[in-house]
Amino acid sequence: MIENFEKLLKKYFCFKQESRVLEASKYSLFLGGKRLRPLILLDVAKSIGEVDSNIERLSCSLEVTHTYSLIHDDLPCMDNDDFRRGKPSCHVQYDYATAVLAGDLLLNSAIEIALQGDITNQNYLRAVSYLFNCSGADGMILGQSLDIFGNKSSKEDIINIAEYKTAKLFSASIMCPVIYFGLASDENSKFIDISRALGVAFQLIDDLLDSEKVEENSILKVCTLVEARKIAIDYLNIAEKALNELPYSLNFLRKALFDLKNKANI
Amino acid sequence: MIENFEKLLKKYFCFKQESRVLEASKYSLFLGGKRLRPLILLDVAKSIGEVDSNIERLSCSLEVTHTYSLIHDDLPCMDNDDFRRGKPSCHVQYDYATAVLAGDLLLNSAIEIALQGDITNQNYLRAVSYLFNCSGADGMILGQSLDIFGNKSSKEDIINIAEYKTAKLFSASIMCPVIYFGLASDENSKFIDISRALGVAFQLIDDLLDSEKVEENSILKVCTLVEARKIAIDYLNIAEKALNELPYSLNFLRKALFDLKNKANI
Repeated sequence: MIENFEKLLKKYFCFKQESRVLEASKYSLFLGGKRLRPLILLDVAKSIGEVDSNIERLSCSLEVTHTYSLIHDDLPCMDNDDFRRGKPSCHVQYDYATAVLAGDLLLNSAIEIALQGDITNQNYLRAVSYLFNCSGADGMILGQSLDIFGNKSSKEDIINIAEYKTAKLFSASIMCPVIYFGLASDENSKFIDISRALGVAFQLIDDLLDSEKVEENSILKVCTLVEARKIAIDYLNIAEKALNELPYSLNFLRKALFDLKNKANI
Repeated sequence: MIENFEKLLKKYFCFKQESRVLEASKYSLFLGGKRLRPLILLDVAKSIGEVDSNIERLSCSLEVTHTYSLIHDDLPCMDNDDFRRGKPSCHVQYDYATAVLAGDLLLNSAIEIALQGDITNQNYLRAVSYLFNCSGADGMILGQSLDIFGNKSSKEDIINIAEYKTAKLFSASIMCPVIYFGLASDENSKFIDISRALGVAFQLIDDLLDSEKVEENSILKVCTLVEARKIAIDYLNIAEKALNELPYSLNFLRKALFDLKNKANI
């Protein structure tokens, strides 16, 4: 499944002119990510409808958006991470200016990829809009702002940051196909529950796995390991319950929740 | 006219949640720019059709895109400019991380503003696509990459950089309304001539006015002041000729060319 997605990304992320910034963008885009968000998107699409070229474009647009945010997050002025997926991060492999521009290029290309889809399909355009609302000023970027400058003194603060910084793009991965295939509102609201709970749980479990090196924005700064684990599992249970009330296979999503639960219990 | 545009920008650049990054974005967006690109767009629209809410959105989306590029250009890793329009640039007024995120927020919001327009109108969506092609990997960002890392040893190199870095967004300011109103191809090609010539001339004349402080990427690094002035005026003449062959008033565009010619002759 992941091999197919790599092919899609190569097919849709495609420009006429070579440049150092484009090369750096490709470096980060093909650095060997797990592709969790687009694979969830494709799985949801397959379970409730079918994978057509609009869905393919949405999955690529989402991953490209995620990658731009990682490049900018790694910059010295942000998290100052020299490594990403065990390899030099973009600004280390290239340079600071190239990394800023590579992030810009990716975000811009996310919209270009999306707008080359079937723009006569209103549901498709609604899904595209949803994606960019999730990544913007009332979504992921708000989360990044809160993460750096907001209060991080209570569980509520940390969970609120996770809802924007992490859960919004997960939300896009689930809701883009739901919007595209125009599901009825009762199923729609179950998918909303899943998407929110999955994203928050993902972030909290990421913090749990980093318990040796507790960052300022970690849930472990504001509660015990046992307590944090319980919160994460509660979120996963919400997602599982909603998932089981839906009449779809959703195998990849099911497995993603299962894997997260295992990690939370370690 | 500019007062009206400021109102449009306040109307369409609008988010639910406050954050430091949003505040920084607004700081840069309302720093008192000349609004040349959106005013040209509105003028072209008024001359060949009418200013409706889709055109308003295109003008705001374009200016927001231009502003994001200025914030990132000013960063220490890029041009390292502490001032923009005589006031502290975004990373000085706020901080480095906020400025990176504010640029990201603006680019993302340019997409959001555009996608909230009439998405049943195919010409509108074609114009939106054109805008983001102009700002992307085969447009402005390519120009920025060439500007930092490309050859700058000949007139051709410098003009090629200007065609991407500067002329592409000017191109969007002229071609977005042309595409939106679906002009016939002979008029279309005249507008293409104008847009390209205007953008290159604008950049070269910017270099001429900075003749006291000649940057690496200035036309004055590769030819004399007299020669550079002649090249710029040749471009302006191309634009003027095409403009005079069109049956539209285009008063603002006409005045912009006139002002540039005056500057080139100083």
